[in-house]
Amino acid sequence: MGRLTARRKVVRVDGACVLTRPDTLAVEEPLEIRVGGTPLTVTMRTPGDDMDLAAGFLVSEGAVSRTDQLTAMRFCAGADSESGQRTNSYNVLDCDLTVPAPAPRAMYTTSSCGICGTASLAAVRTTAAYDVSVDPLTVTPLLLSALPDRLRAEQRVFDKTGGLHAAGLFTRDGDLLCLREDVGRHNAVDKVVGWALREGRLPLHGTVLMVSGRASFELVQKAWMAGIPCLAAVSAPSSLAVDLAVEAGLTLVGFLRGSSMNIYSRADRVLT
Amino acid sequence: MGRLTARRKVVRVDGACVLTRPDTLAVEEPLEIRVGGTPLTVTMRTPGDDMDLAAGFLVSEGAVSRTDQLTAMRFCAGADSESGQRTNSYNVLDCDLTVPAPAPRAMYTTSSCGICGTASLAAVRTTAAYDVSVDPLTVTPLLLSALPDRLRAEQRVFDKTGGLHAAGLFTRDGDLLCLREDVGRHNAVDKVVGWALREGRLPLHGTVLMVSGRASFELVQKAWMAGIPCLAAVSAPSSLAVDLAVEAGLTLVGFLRGSSMNIYSRADRVLT
Repeated sequence: MGRLTARRKVVRVDGACVLTRPDTLAVEEPLEIRVGGTPLTVTMRTPGDDMDLAAGFLVSEGAVSRTDQLTAMRFCAGADSESGQRTNSYNVLDCDLTVPAPAPRAMYTTSSCGICGTASLAAVRTTAAYDVSVDPLTVTPLLLSALPDRLRAEQRVFDKTGGLHAAGLFTRDGDLLCLREDVGRHNAVDKVVGWALREGRLPLHGTVLMVSGRASFELVQKAWMAGIPCLAAVSAPSSLAVDLAVEAGLTLVGFLRGSSMNIYSRADRVLT
Repeated sequence: MGRLTARRKVVRVDGACVLTRPDTLAVEEPLEIRVGGTPLTVTMRTPGDDMDLAAGFLVSEGAVSRTDQLTAMRFCAGADSESGQRTNSYNVLDCDLTVPAPAPRAMYTTSSCGICGTASLAAVRTTAAYDVSVDPLTVTPLLLSALPDRLRAEQRVFDKTGGLHAAGLFTRDGDLLCLREDVGRHNAVDKVVGWALREGRLPLHGTVLMVSGRASFELVQKAWMAGIPCLAAVSAPSSLAVDLAVEAGLTLVGFLRGSSMNIYSRADRVLT
């Protein structure tokens, strides 16, 4: 857990008061994901649960959908950019698949970026392996209202920085199955999905995914790819997030605060 | 400005009260950026100021640094994924450069992602055209403290959605030069930088860039590429953002709230 945060010297100004003190920051470092030794992508992430991150990324990409398709993962020695020596920085992770590798993407993904894979508009939407529209999940508004506090309570243990996003996977009864944190919201979601793949739990029938912050297109896409029928966010969704949720038949909840919320699609799951 | 927001039907739940009403959402749509007809990248962005966005992206990538290197931009007809017909959706923008095009990146960038370009860890850091460490800018804490309210006041005019990030470029006297909004913080910054390129204002000596939300590695990199000596954010920076700011000699301010702030690098510009 030590690499989740780092200490840096900061000059703190508060009105006329100025002092220099150490500050705790969320760590952001590049992770290169390889498949069969071939570089696939580089994502800017918070170290920790990297194998879950890589596994979830491969699910989000549509490369794998079953546990047995991902046979091994290992950290590799990479060239150290400072010294030129090959050291194991735990920033290069190689994955073995029983299925064809996705096309190398020759790009790198920032800490706030998730889906990267095509230069063609027509190929933006990945093909989902699961049909979430038929999921019989129902949840009460009361249960949904409790999730943001549950997420923050669990997150507070880890996040002293104010800089980490969280994604939490809950059962229909509100039990927390998995919580992951990252400087990138999409990485936190990939870590949850990757955990589920590695635990043999895909598709995630009957679950609710709760995320800090906003809901973009990519987060709806990742939920759909993992078979999650309900995505709830503390803040606003984008127009395209709503459109994709409607297309998928996925319940999308935004502005989930106190006892109020906006339901943008498949409200029947919440109100029955 | 109409395409900044879109209306969607939403079910609003507030305790026991349930009603269906229209809701205003931030628009998120893909923009394909081409150079000389060849696809370079696709970014998920809020439509508007797209030529600024493309120009700023090319600056951030290190492809151009002078106004005359970008000779023309035009929207192209793209294949409509629904009908297969070629229509001008204003989602494909072609740029003419007098300098070599960057290598196509064969990927797409989400609304929360900015720098995407290499599968090699060693190539993550782009080479800055400008040395911001020698910029003689000085600003007072009082001036910095006024910027978040200035940004929010200007942003309120446009953002009714709760889903748009903002980036504002200010002079050392606190005058607003340019404000841009987007679902992606990195896009808002690219739009500001692209505005500056097209106005012949690069490098942006003596300016302060204020952003909503957090400061990641990519935002420091974009500021550096545009010659901006000071980046201020409302929330936390990441560890790598601080490390890059220290390396660049760029003043990085975080948690800028009320009269308090954290200065992570080159505090001498604020305190002299």
